[in-house]
Amino acid sequence: MTPPSPTTRPENAPPAQEAVVDLLGVLAYGCLSGFSRMAVDAELAPALPVKTAIAAMAVTEFHHYEVLADRLDRLGVSHDEAMAPFVAAIDSFHDRTHPSDWLEGLVKAYVSDGIGRDFYSEIATYVDPQTRAFVTRVLADAGQAQFVVDTVRAVVDADQRTASRLALWGRRLVGEAIQQAQQVAVARESLTALLVGGWGSGADIAELGRMFARITQAHTERMKRLGLTA
Amino acid sequence: MTPPSPTTRPENAPPAQEAVVDLLGVLAYGCLSGFSRMAVDAELAPALPVKTAIAAMAVTEFHHYEVLADRLDRLGVSHDEAMAPFVAAIDSFHDRTHPSDWLEGLVKAYVSDGIGRDFYSEIATYVDPQTRAFVTRVLADAGQAQFVVDTVRAVVDADQRTASRLALWGRRLVGEAIQQAQQVAVARESLTALLVGGWGSGADIAELGRMFARITQAHTERMKRLGLTA
Repeated sequence: MTPPSPTTRPENAPPAQEAVVDLLGVLAYGCLSGFSRMAVDAELAPALPVKTAIAAMAVTEFHHYEVLADRLDRLGVSHDEAMAPFVAAIDSFHDRTHPSDWLEGLVKAYVSDGIGRDFYSEIATYVDPQTRAFVTRVLADAGQAQFVVDTVRAVVDADQRTASRLALWGRRLVGEAIQQAQQVAVARESLTALLVGGWGSGADIAELGRMFARITQAHTERMKRLGLTA
Repeated sequence: MTPPSPTTRPENAPPAQEAVVDLLGVLAYGCLSGFSRMAVDAELAPALPVKTAIAAMAVTEFHHYEVLADRLDRLGVSHDEAMAPFVAAIDSFHDRTHPSDWLEGLVKAYVSDGIGRDFYSEIATYVDPQTRAFVTRVLADAGQAQFVVDTVRAVVDADQRTASRLALWGRRLVGEAIQQAQQVAVARESLTALLVGGWGSGADIAELGRMFARITQAHTERMKRLGLTA
């Protein structure tokens, strides 16, 4: 099913500006908290090369945050206020998924980055083309994911016990991530309207379900790339 | 006393290259660990604006690290190996100075950044002009210190009890920093030779003492700028 173009949004949908601010706000706080957690997780790394690679990923997240905050400021919106509604859900995700070692940290960085990217891309389908193009640019992978894939594969290909543990970890991550994403989507009227508004009543919940099915499927493929069963 | 120019280094001094690698190595790890600790400390901040300001300071440290690592690589030296001898001393400093709240974190960022800058600048006096100019560029304050000064002053000017606590914290920081800096200077033959080699025997220890006196004096002035007694 091809999602409708933004021009088909129903008249009772919230102002487009509000949805754009919510999208940029949740994305900005996702990047900011991603920075913080990855910077902390980098400390778990056993050696300097891995530590600095994770730190570099964290710094990339921070620069994404800066670009998003700047965009919000240019829209005349306080970026702190735009992020505020999403702090609890995103912090809750991180609080419930503390990695116990550097490998779990790497898998979390890769998996949650991927899920976040999919989720935001789905939302971005329904905003104006300029915002959509902007979000797509910000979300573009800087090639750092390959480092995670190579590093994790090298370990799990040689160690079945670690592979099992990380596979379990991946399942927990996707469960927690989708639970928080659902809360975010449902708690913010503007995002809900954005996501379900285009289909008219009846198809709403079904389409939301399909969206999360697509995100879960993409997650399964990412886990395979890590050499893990989802 | 004007330090001698690099050309007066005694013949029994270690190869200049070794001292340069040590200087860039200790500086690189100082920045890398500064990044990690500040990113962690940012989490202590009570509100998003302070949190992101501290995170931005952390990211600046990481970019300094990148520039230094790149310079080492261009010299044909593994930056990880160049940093390795200094990991224990710098980690020890951080482990002994965990801030208990965001204000202590801010004061630590400002104070240890300042002491580090002074210490590295002193060492840089004795290396080749290109390295010296490079280190000076890397160490240039990006204007972030003013944010710390303004934020801390606003709190301590209104709260004498916090001012006393932070003054005590500042004294602990400078004590720990100088202790670790002395260990670094003494443990690395090339740095010791660099620092004391220029003065000939006899003046060595006295000049080292004067260097640490200069660093302590600069620290006192920084504390005053924060509105604190050193």
